[in-house]
Amino acid sequence: MGTVQDLGERKIIELIVERLEKPPKMPVPFGDDVSAMPLGNGLLAVLKTDMLVGGLDVPPGMSLYQVARKAVVMNISDFASKGVQPAALLVSLGLRRGTSRSDVEDLARGLNAGVREYGAYVIGGDTSEAPDLIIACMVFGTAESNRLIRRSGAQAGDILAVTGLFGKTAAGLRVLLHGLDAPTPLKRRLLEAVYLPQARLNEGLTAAKTGEVTASIDSSDGLAVSLHELRKMSGKGFELSSLPVAPEAESFAKLHRLDVKDLVLYGGEEYELVLTIRPGGWQKAQRSIQEIGGNLIQIGVVTENQSICLRCDRKKMEIPYRGWEHFRSQI
Amino acid sequence: MGTVQDLGERKIIELIVERLEKPPKMPVPFGDDVSAMPLGNGLLAVLKTDMLVGGLDVPPGMSLYQVARKAVVMNISDFASKGVQPAALLVSLGLRRGTSRSDVEDLARGLNAGVREYGAYVIGGDTSEAPDLIIACMVFGTAESNRLIRRSGAQAGDILAVTGLFGKTAAGLRVLLHGLDAPTPLKRRLLEAVYLPQARLNEGLTAAKTGEVTASIDSSDGLAVSLHELRKMSGKGFELSSLPVAPEAESFAKLHRLDVKDLVLYGGEEYELVLTIRPGGWQKAQRSIQEIGGNLIQIGVVTENQSICLRCDRKKMEIPYRGWEHFRSQI
Repeated sequence: MGTVQDLGERKIIELIVERLEKPPKMPVPFGDDVSAMPLGNGLLAVLKTDMLVGGLDVPPGMSLYQVARKAVVMNISDFASKGVQPAALLVSLGLRRGTSRSDVEDLARGLNAGVREYGAYVIGGDTSEAPDLIIACMVFGTAESNRLIRRSGAQAGDILAVTGLFGKTAAGLRVLLHGLDAPTPLKRRLLEAVYLPQARLNEGLTAAKTGEVTASIDSSDGLAVSLHELRKMSGKGFELSSLPVAPEAESFAKLHRLDVKDLVLYGGEEYELVLTIRPGGWQKAQRSIQEIGGNLIQIGVVTENQSICLRCDRKKMEIPYRGWEHFRSQI
Repeated sequence: MGTVQDLGERKIIELIVERLEKPPKMPVPFGDDVSAMPLGNGLLAVLKTDMLVGGLDVPPGMSLYQVARKAVVMNISDFASKGVQPAALLVSLGLRRGTSRSDVEDLARGLNAGVREYGAYVIGGDTSEAPDLIIACMVFGTAESNRLIRRSGAQAGDILAVTGLFGKTAAGLRVLLHGLDAPTPLKRRLLEAVYLPQARLNEGLTAAKTGEVTASIDSSDGLAVSLHELRKMSGKGFELSSLPVAPEAESFAKLHRLDVKDLVLYGGEEYELVLTIRPGGWQKAQRSIQEIGGNLIQIGVVTENQSICLRCDRKKMEIPYRGWEHFRSQI
């Protein structure tokens, strides 16, 4: 039989989804970054929920303001990956006995900061006593159905791209959780990546508007997991010609003789977008995103062959399915 | 300063709401049973979130199927009170380490049963490890703005009515938590009220369609709290001519020499609707609800005077603000 630790998050979700009756129309399938319901005239209500649990998702030194803001950001990031503007957020807040008035105020300010940075509002919620801090957010927005980017549209020959460089968060977590040190300016940048993550909403909205993006996902479970999930939904593979290594991750890896690939591929809690783009639309997409101050970095191509590999030192390395999984991983 | 226990749920929510920037249009104010966003053409997206916490909200003997179903029902009940059909539900599910595969399956079946009873579907969610069972549901539906019944519309002279009799749940909880006993057939009915609560969705939808309901709320925090919350939002009072006492509550109160008024007024976890109805529309509203197999029971009238009192034995008794409040109450 087994317990949730034996099963892992993905199998648990599979067991649940199997037991649910499905609505007659499901414009976005189970397993994509968001859920949706048709509103008529090609319009969709787009919905997402994701829950932050204090003891599990909060690294040491993170303030309650930052924790609440992050709980919002991780939900907004899923909207970003679909190219959908979030309009409103509701929150179910579980508070421990003994939580102080100023803690509550910090959480409220963090929630408000998180939504306002991305043009949304908190419009409702619920509080409850709980044995740990629980922040379950629900985001709502609307989108034209043919504009919402699914995970499933990647085509062989498409360009594989990301909106930023990876590895700072994984390095920052090693500082906070494993006691690895770094010179102050570097350390500050690594911890900022952990404490103040950014959702790539402008990039996602802009990319969707170009009409050139064929598939997209956010990288909250790590770059490797994102690629595997895109593969599962699109039925294609990826050949990576380079890794999007943040210079800070590079320095940190050198300092501690770590393999920087581990920081970049298997980190998680990083909120870049991973996109596939029609080759003919690449320049348009890249220019549009640069115009709003963002980056679009090619890291490889989509292949018919369903393997996921990195060309590196004239060899090919398979990238395994490894990253953050609830019930199995420990930060 | 104080902690959340000193503050209580209502003050906590006030502290949070004060720190939130408000959207330019808020078709339903903070503090009503649901939240809403305008979709254009007089249509609203209606949203609600409410969280169930295992150790707090689950009485002994309740199966995981029943717990998950109840987590759905308590959210649907808020839609019922507004006269809005729920379309879809998302769930953030927190599971303890050691939760078994069959536990997960029971929870999934309970979630599905809950939504399907009321014509909705589970369309997405998220699972996470947590120190206790957490079921945070988020419900979505759409409604015409002028059809959604607010808490704020009660007028002096309106009829005060409820959709069913009260007190069974409070009696059932006294059986389960305080060890009070009852003869088997009575006990079975009391426990069923606790384990398998029903949301009055058909009644709420039908009442809204008549156009005769001026205000409405559900009774999940108890009848007394519902009346006080309606008063706060409508700025009117209530004079009750009778209490809607369930015969089972009456029998149980006699058996244990309890005051049945306590069971009826201050129980909570009961999901009847409390409505105010234009006097000229009373017969129409009552007939419509009877036609779908429901009940609409007059218990009093709305008064300009903002007190809430019960006429009883030729005396008037004030009904205090007392009932379930998170962080303060203990089941």
